[in-house]
Amino acid sequence: MWLPLDPPGGMDPGDGPAHLIRLVSRHRVVIVGGGFGGLYAAKALRKAPVELTLVDRRNFHLFQPLLYQVATGGLSPGEIASPLRAVLSRQRNAEVLLAEVVDFDVSGRQVILKDGAVPYDDLIVAAGATDYYFGHDEWAPLAPGLKTVEDATEIRGRVLEAFERAEREPDAARRQAWLTFVIVGGGATGVELAGALGEIANDTLRHDFRHIDPSESRILLVEGEDRVLPSFPADLSRKAARQLEDLKVTLRLSARVTAIDSESVTIQNHSRDSERLPARTVLWAAGVRASSLGQKLAERTGAPLDRAGRVMVAPDLSLSGHAEIHVIGDLAGFTHQGGKPLPGVAPVAMQQGRYVANLIRRKLRGGSVGPFHYFNKGNLATVGRNRAVADFGVIHVAGFPAWFLWVFVHLMYIVEFENRLLIFVEWVYNYVTRNRGARLITGDERR
Amino acid sequence: MWLPLDPPGGMDPGDGPAHLIRLVSRHRVVIVGGGFGGLYAAKALRKAPVELTLVDRRNFHLFQPLLYQVATGGLSPGEIASPLRAVLSRQRNAEVLLAEVVDFDVSGRQVILKDGAVPYDDLIVAAGATDYYFGHDEWAPLAPGLKTVEDATEIRGRVLEAFERAEREPDAARRQAWLTFVIVGGGATGVELAGALGEIANDTLRHDFRHIDPSESRILLVEGEDRVLPSFPADLSRKAARQLEDLKVTLRLSARVTAIDSESVTIQNHSRDSERLPARTVLWAAGVRASSLGQKLAERTGAPLDRAGRVMVAPDLSLSGHAEIHVIGDLAGFTHQGGKPLPGVAPVAMQQGRYVANLIRRKLRGGSVGPFHYFNKGNLATVGRNRAVADFGVIHVAGFPAWFLWVFVHLMYIVEFENRLLIFVEWVYNYVTRNRGARLITGDERR
Repeated sequence: MWLPLDPPGGMDPGDGPAHLIRLVSRHRVVIVGGGFGGLYAAKALRKAPVELTLVDRRNFHLFQPLLYQVATGGLSPGEIASPLRAVLSRQRNAEVLLAEVVDFDVSGRQVILKDGAVPYDDLIVAAGATDYYFGHDEWAPLAPGLKTVEDATEIRGRVLEAFERAEREPDAARRQAWLTFVIVGGGATGVELAGALGEIANDTLRHDFRHIDPSESRILLVEGEDRVLPSFPADLSRKAARQLEDLKVTLRLSARVTAIDSESVTIQNHSRDSERLPARTVLWAAGVRASSLGQKLAERTGAPLDRAGRVMVAPDLSLSGHAEIHVIGDLAGFTHQGGKPLPGVAPVAMQQGRYVANLIRRKLRGGSVGPFHYFNKGNLATVGRNRAVADFGVIHVAGFPAWFLWVFVHLMYIVEFENRLLIFVEWVYNYVTRNRGARLITGDERR
Repeated sequence: MWLPLDPPGGMDPGDGPAHLIRLVSRHRVVIVGGGFGGLYAAKALRKAPVELTLVDRRNFHLFQPLLYQVATGGLSPGEIASPLRAVLSRQRNAEVLLAEVVDFDVSGRQVILKDGAVPYDDLIVAAGATDYYFGHDEWAPLAPGLKTVEDATEIRGRVLEAFERAEREPDAARRQAWLTFVIVGGGATGVELAGALGEIANDTLRHDFRHIDPSESRILLVEGEDRVLPSFPADLSRKAARQLEDLKVTLRLSARVTAIDSESVTIQNHSRDSERLPARTVLWAAGVRASSLGQKLAERTGAPLDRAGRVMVAPDLSLSGHAEIHVIGDLAGFTHQGGKPLPGVAPVAMQQGRYVANLIRRKLRGGSVGPFHYFNKGNLATVGRNRAVADFGVIHVAGFPAWFLWVFVHLMYIVEFENRLLIFVEWVYNYVTRNRGARLITGDERR
């Protein structure tokens, strides 16, 4: 156990004698991961008689739905991240532990850290997902995905640098390669990235260069299915496709990428014809895979994994034979009666976090809860300024109303965290001025 | 010459035929460096009949006076940086070149890039300054300075990580070493950093930890002179010292650092007694040295350098024997009749930039200008929220009025660039809420 039992000299008297709380041995809940799932579970346990530890290897919660805005220079990392300690600062029963979880001792009931261990009575694993290259891990450095703030600033740097290189390139063919951007994957993230790149090329950078015309960029969106946003109804996919084409994004549907190198990408169409396309910037939005901690959980508990590495959970999100272990969010493989697995989106993680928190609260009072049910309030995807699609079951919305809804819903969620007002102001400002002021190429190599 | 003479295919028709402008051979002005000096020179040449190229290795202008806010989590890098292309986007006679200058061919009149060359008729060198460790370059990784956005995010990460490590450290002595922050140098930057650290320890992080009390941090400011802010009048130094002490910053005056390693710093006082102090975080704000491009200029033109590596310039900021080469800002060594060299602050660089722009405009019309005179509007230094000092010659101001002035003046300057309104809103927001939301530990190693 990494925590000293002696009260350290530097203890904040305002927090009360934490070692005493420890000695009266409350019910210990450990949450692995400070994403939407973990954080909503923690907040929902605010008034529960538990001693809560939230473990994350990063010191901030990331509002991932807006990460593409950082990758395209619209927002700064600090504007979509909230320090975990700040979020839980006033929650007396919670502490944050900045550490890396490497394994689980399920019989001893402790989480194994890289440098220590934390005991638990109830464990909530919300470790999320990471990019997956379908066995082509060598593509990772060539086609960065969009999962971390470092990914986002890396993509931002690559995109901006491509325009800079094009500006200085006298050879027309090479210049075109620098001005060709390929986004692999036509789901929500790929569509957002492609739309934002379209706006950058056609609008943001319009007057910025003297030797190139950024609007002559080629932006390709490659999707394996025969439509973008395959998880949406077909009519909304068509509308999103039209919105993308307005932004001069070229769609390559029923197509897949078979090779990537530093100068080109090879795209195979549905009739298996291959084309090698000179392109200097390739972005990955095609596949995710559950955190490798899912594998560890499977090894330690015998829980099955699905093809995407998600841990298959019981109807109450626990593991069979381990009612004290709960898996939520992108790491959890959960299917409503025979349906498809729930998608890896924030609302699922948030509802699961709240559900498990409620389950633990009930359990402590000797009660129980029914199985988890996901309440789908609707699906939204944005393409760019004034462009989006929204699916509310029978009602389908596209264009400005959908975009307005998208902004509203995202601001609502941000309300839960710190930066609400500011990000709203920034948004209005960027909307009115068409500003993308955070267009920085940063990073050590470029210093 | 790196520029292709043929019009590239991708030329923006809205910008007019740039290759024709090139063929009628306007007067070519090259500016090296997009800091305050270079950018103000570029803007002041807006209507001049010149063909302007601004060369910088970074794609953004950095509002350096607020860099300490990034280092302490108050602002995000994107909020104090403006893309150079955006700033000069609408200035028809200007282009931005993202490239690294490595030398000067003064007889051939061209700037030598790492990968090319740019010819000039008039050259303005505004390459700035970098940290200087007084011959102890081995201290650089141990005690980062505050010159780039990467420096700032590195410092931010180190400071936050120190609190995290302290939180998990059971040994009291080691914990204290993590909670000890040493800032070397009591000029404006050192005072700003020390004050901001004082606020972080005493206020921002107050409720964030469970095993340490951040307000028990030790923050030491080491200054070689017998007072902080040595360039200010003595009474304001005393007031700044008192403001720092309010924030529980310990001053070590007439003292110097003689050794730094990863676990400690050795401080020698005026009676040459040495103390080895366990400290995990050391920040450098003690010395700057002019860019190494000054050395190149000296080699190529015979211009003398002063002790800080600054290029000694004529009264009109040109080099003797090279009326077409102008050196401004932190790189220029300029003294008013026998006085001290002008300080390396933004107002000096801005005035020099405008002066040289005016000189070139006059020269093109066959006229001339008198020698450069610096008009000192006053000196400001901030210590923290509501705390600052201001020196207007006969009038000395301290406390809230000085702080308010400091905010006002900095916002005024930012007006010149993009982010004005937003940064103002952010500021008010941070002021009212005492927010420091950008407390992220980022960077590849920490991913």
